[in-house]
Amino acid sequence: MNNSSVRVAIVGASGYSGEELVNLLLTHPRVELTAATSRQYSGQTLAQIFPRFASRPKARVLKFSEPKVDELAQKAAVVFLALPHGVAAEFAVPLLEKGCRIIDLSADFRLRNAAVYKEFYAHEHPAPELLAEAVYGLPEVYRAQIKGAALVAAPGCYPTGILLPLIPLLRAGLVKPEGIIVNSLSGVSGAGRKAEADYLFCECHESARPYSVPKHRHLSEIEQELSLAAGVKVVIQFTPHLIPVNRGIVTTTCLQPAQPFPTAEATAKLGEQIAATYKQAYEQEPFVRLLEGKFLPDTKNVVGANFIEIAWRLDPRTGHLLVMSAEDNLVKGAGGQAVQALNIMCGFLETTGLT
Amino acid sequence: MNNSSVRVAIVGASGYSGEELVNLLLTHPRVELTAATSRQYSGQTLAQIFPRFASRPKARVLKFSEPKVDELAQKAAVVFLALPHGVAAEFAVPLLEKGCRIIDLSADFRLRNAAVYKEFYAHEHPAPELLAEAVYGLPEVYRAQIKGAALVAAPGCYPTGILLPLIPLLRAGLVKPEGIIVNSLSGVSGAGRKAEADYLFCECHESARPYSVPKHRHLSEIEQELSLAAGVKVVIQFTPHLIPVNRGIVTTTCLQPAQPFPTAEATAKLGEQIAATYKQAYEQEPFVRLLEGKFLPDTKNVVGANFIEIAWRLDPRTGHLLVMSAEDNLVKGAGGQAVQALNIMCGFLETTGLT
Amino acid sequence: MNNSSVRVAIVGASGYSGEELVNLLLTHPRVELTAATSRQYSGQTLAQIFPRFASRPKARVLKFSEPKVDELAQKAAVVFLALPHGVAAEFAVPLLEKGCRIIDLSADFRLRNAAVYKEFYAHEHPAPELLAEAVYGLPEVYRAQIKGAALVAAPGCYPTGILLPLIPLLRAGLVKPEGIIVNSLSGVSGAGRKAEADYLFCECHESARPYSVPKHRHLSEIEQELSLAAGVKVVIQFTPHLIPVNRGIVTTTCLQPAQPFPTAEATAKLGEQIAATYKQAYEQEPFVRLLEGKFLPDTKNVVGANFIEIAWRLDPRTGHLLVMSAEDNLVKGAGGQAVQALNIMCGFLETTGLT
Amino acid sequence: MNNSSVRVAIVGASGYSGEELVNLLLTHPRVELTAATSRQYSGQTLAQIFPRFASRPKARVLKFSEPKVDELAQKAAVVFLALPHGVAAEFAVPLLEKGCRIIDLSADFRLRNAAVYKEFYAHEHPAPELLAEAVYGLPEVYRAQIKGAALVAAPGCYPTGILLPLIPLLRAGLVKPEGIIVNSLSGVSGAGRKAEADYLFCECHESARPYSVPKHRHLSEIEQELSLAAGVKVVIQFTPHLIPVNRGIVTTTCLQPAQPFPTAEATAKLGEQIAATYKQAYEQEPFVRLLEGKFLPDTKNVVGANFIEIAWRLDPRTGHLLVMSAEDNLVKGAGGQAVQALNIMCGFLETTGLT
Repeated sequence: MNNSSVRVAIVGASGYSGEELVNLLLTHPRVELTAATSRQYSGQTLAQIFPRFASRPKARVLKFSEPKVDELAQKAAVVFLALPHGVAAEFAVPLLEKGCRIIDLSADFRLRNAAVYKEFYAHEHPAPELLAEAVYGLPEVYRAQIKGAALVAAPGCYPTGILLPLIPLLRAGLVKPEGIIVNSLSGVSGAGRKAEADYLFCECHESARPYSVPKHRHLSEIEQELSLAAGVKVVIQFTPHLIPVNRGIVTTTCLQPAQPFPTAEATAKLGEQIAATYKQAYEQEPFVRLLEGKFLPDTKNVVGANFIEIAWRLDPRTGHLLVMSAEDNLVKGAGGQAVQALNIMCGFLETTGLT
Repeated sequence: MNNSSVRVAIVGASGYSGEELVNLLLTHPRVELTAATSRQYSGQTLAQIFPRFASRPKARVLKFSEPKVDELAQKAAVVFLALPHGVAAEFAVPLLEKGCRIIDLSADFRLRNAAVYKEFYAHEHPAPELLAEAVYGLPEVYRAQIKGAALVAAPGCYPTGILLPLIPLLRAGLVKPEGIIVNSLSGVSGAGRKAEADYLFCECHESARPYSVPKHRHLSEIEQELSLAAGVKVVIQFTPHLIPVNRGIVTTTCLQPAQPFPTAEATAKLGEQIAATYKQAYEQEPFVRLLEGKFLPDTKNVVGANFIEIAWRLDPRTGHLLVMSAEDNLVKGAGGQAVQALNIMCGFLETTGLT
Repeated sequence: MNNSSVRVAIVGASGYSGEELVNLLLTHPRVELTAATSRQYSGQTLAQIFPRFASRPKARVLKFSEPKVDELAQKAAVVFLALPHGVAAEFAVPLLEKGCRIIDLSADFRLRNAAVYKEFYAHEHPAPELLAEAVYGLPEVYRAQIKGAALVAAPGCYPTGILLPLIPLLRAGLVKPEGIIVNSLSGVSGAGRKAEADYLFCECHESARPYSVPKHRHLSEIEQELSLAAGVKVVIQFTPHLIPVNRGIVTTTCLQPAQPFPTAEATAKLGEQIAATYKQAYEQEPFVRLLEGKFLPDTKNVVGANFIEIAWRLDPRTGHLLVMSAEDNLVKGAGGQAVQALNIMCGFLETTGLT
Repeated sequence: MNNSSVRVAIVGASGYSGEELVNLLLTHPRVELTAATSRQYSGQTLAQIFPRFASRPKARVLKFSEPKVDELAQKAAVVFLALPHGVAAEFAVPLLEKGCRIIDLSADFRLRNAAVYKEFYAHEHPAPELLAEAVYGLPEVYRAQIKGAALVAAPGCYPTGILLPLIPLLRAGLVKPEGIIVNSLSGVSGAGRKAEADYLFCECHESARPYSVPKHRHLSEIEQELSLAAGVKVVIQFTPHLIPVNRGIVTTTCLQPAQPFPTAEATAKLGEQIAATYKQAYEQEPFVRLLEGKFLPDTKNVVGANFIEIAWRLDPRTGHLLVMSAEDNLVKGAGGQAVQALNIMCGFLETTGLT
């Protein structure tokens, strides 16, 4: 391990997001993974629990450990938290005090307002004093702030797939902040590795269903960030659906352009503005793929990768703009984006370990 | 109507819709299946091509035959057409002349306006003179007209899942006819049994994707029927998605109530109106299931059955009404609904052979 | 409900086998389903827990109840037990005493020898005194005994798919009782509706794996029945695999013919003997499908039906006979076969409610 | 060998094996991919046809080209052929003459005997004069010969998963060369990207079925290599099954140990010999994972990776040895193994580009 590598720990490494972090950090050329905690698997090597990592030498020696703050602070400069909301804050507070930098994959530090947290997560915020300093870890939007942050809140899976296509349009004033209708389709890994009957194979295979209607928790961070982009309070309609794939989220959003486009000429002009806006926002972004021509997003093109695909269509019949995206909920929607934030925080090339 | 059975033929019996018709008609107690045509499989028994029917005696003797109008007219009083659009009309015209009643599962006779047909199907309508007499075969809406019809156009799979939840609301004036946003998720059988690379197992498994954006052909019949229900021209946003299940369509529709519901009292009142409207429309319908309490539609509850599940939610945050449905695209969305029409046409109990 | 119907109860109606029993018994024309027990769902209607049954009037009124022996004995002449092994016997003993007839889907009464039970199930047999009177509920083999039985032990899913193809060959002396190698592939419903991480969607989808190697519990009943058919003790190699389908078991068995077939003539002659043996055994059986020509078993042909498909091939290169079968593990491998036994016990036409 | 890269071309780059080669060679640090041919997609970039490669700069500029021998010979020192059997030889012959080294993924050069080729592939061998110099590209067995080979025949997917577990046992004389029974389960990508109805999503999903019984083409190379390892002619029973996963093959093989193990002591001793034999054969192999303890192979642990998992169990009840393996049919079973051969041929570290 060279001198310029960073020592990193993962707390809660046995869920799906934690496992994806293990996957990415084991092969990251600038990272030394020094600890991975799991109460359930403590004392067993990573390779024993996740045979797919067995070919990596480190996975055959590094053992899952109990999550102890002192040990973690000694072993790691950066700690990833892949824990349930509410629990994450219990580790973030003391680890920050001991000088660790934190990348939290839970919802605990994504919201700026503790009252909104309570409304959506149904308990008092466990550390409201940290909300002001936490940075929302969406690199394409908050790259500068992430760089120096002590506490990064990695965005949720749905928010990533919704925010990246919408923020440039709202910032540019090309679409109205009202009447935004979002429908998403998510793979089952989004539910986490929970032994609940609802997520058994036979309950999900040959099944498709909406859920958490009409007030999914992710709305809180989605609306917070859309409001910041639009400069006014944004309230959206969001309907998530569960579909039988392991990984992947497809999102289709219906938007109202700020200006109507009643003629072919107006349609062409608006199309050019949208294309230019996206190009300016994302042409240099290594993990955003703007689809052209006939192509539409497809989860199979992004599974296992830190990319988001974005396509759009103007519909002259309805006067709407349709925006579609696809991402891997565990990579760009969780662990991959968190590693992207790590790269920014540590001054590494942003794509390190991610391609 | 006496207890005797009706002689029935299926033209185009080897596609997915045709196979489902075979499935239903082989066991229908009032039907004698006298012919099933397939150019590809002519001369082979139904059981040889579809082993799952092998346990039914009739399937071991009835052979697929070439589609010949004279023979069909001799053998059957009612003929189901499970053919591509454009081709169906070629059989419908002479068979009607010879006195057969027709239940057509293609798009050829669903539209009242030949110009709209040409716009959406990209060729001249093959028999515009029949459009005036054709009945749109949605039993819950056109039961009386189906009864005496010579030519029934069975609705498309998406239209069925969209129209049944929306028509009662539009008729009652509870929702605005503008701003209707529909998102549907369909299983792969909706694409038919076509040997195209796009529908290979490996191209669909672990894939989810929007397609036919923004102008799917089914929009033509959906908007026709919504307009009739609303009394004004309705234009909707409709985005279909392909998901890796064999059968099933889930549809989520976002509607704007005619009256806002800014208070809890207003919400409760509007909720009562919606519930009452659905109850009145569908309480007696044998194939519509209004879900109550926490339940949301799930394709796994309707696969293989002629039912549609419907649930709805008012969202006080957005002021919208969400309506969700689930159906089997090959049953209530195709073959089952066509048999339901047959039962009505022949004076059978409407559920005969369907439960 | 007509006079000649039988009152039936299901104990343990919320697992996958229990749910399939509910499915079959709700529509069985000679059955009055009077009780379905589930500790977990007690007080809720069948339709509330299993929305797919909501269209059946009975499912909307019949509530899951606590399993109480006295009540069950009052309400039902025949009781189906869909309970874990060990627990089933606790209900069977008192219900038999009270005069009920029992169809047990657990392993508790499948073995004739309590010591073998202990070897394979790792606890003392809970009611060894009943083993002598219990009948192994494989209708194609024990039809006569099932007719008058008070206690029928419905076979396991794997045993059904293995025994039906092998027993006629062993009885006819066409294959050796040694060296039998069986490989099976099972859908995930075979594991039951257990909220265990191993059976989560993401752990089974895109996964295929052997398990319970080399001594699966079902070996005990398979070898018992094969030994009875062969007249000598039979020990087999059996390797089950878990594959990502909801339902269905495919089994491939490699057998050594009693006589070699070194020439084309010998091969043809042996082939005729095998064909004749199967024809004699199963030609009249309503639920056994002997495939001919190029056809091989495929689970998709039997899913949802009480059929087993059987095909065979002689391999002149190796001198072996390959026998293959496919069945739905929850129907012919569990609930369907149990209902078949009910029909025999009650003197109904054997196919009643099963086609 | 210096640090410079090797120029490489892929002929037939649009099938599943070709696509996997593109995937691996685009990111291989010592490879410059100079050509990828596809008659169907000629003129379009790799990224246009396979959006999942769009994030790799090379994929956005390299275009599929027509397969022309002269151009290929100019552009590449090593040419991968991912073509149907029979067609591959047409390219191999002239490319070899022009000085290219060839790694052929078809069956054309896997067999040493042209008569066996004709028996299994039903046509005359197109270039029998090359069979003597072709090297069977299984690195764990033929590493030394691959190093200097001009023509490497990459093994088939099933053969890889069968040969690697069996060859060490046969070489060590631990198992008998007779009575070997092999059952494999393969994902659908094994059938290639062919637009045939048998491989449509709806024909494979919820289906499991044996096929190519009893004489699959891969038997020819499997038996050739097992015979070489055993020193006597080996004939095996091999039954492949198609299961609904995209990628992955699980293989279960039943073997007869050369010596019986009637006692616990004998079992333990034989177990030690097997363990030692595998350890000696594979401990240093970077792509073979010997599973220990309770672990059994699972395709989900190897999908996307160039690994094969191997586990074994002695069964004292039957006297057999069971050997199980799992691999990704497109990686260790095709493209990955071919790249492993490339690394050997070019003197690169064998794991380059594969971990």
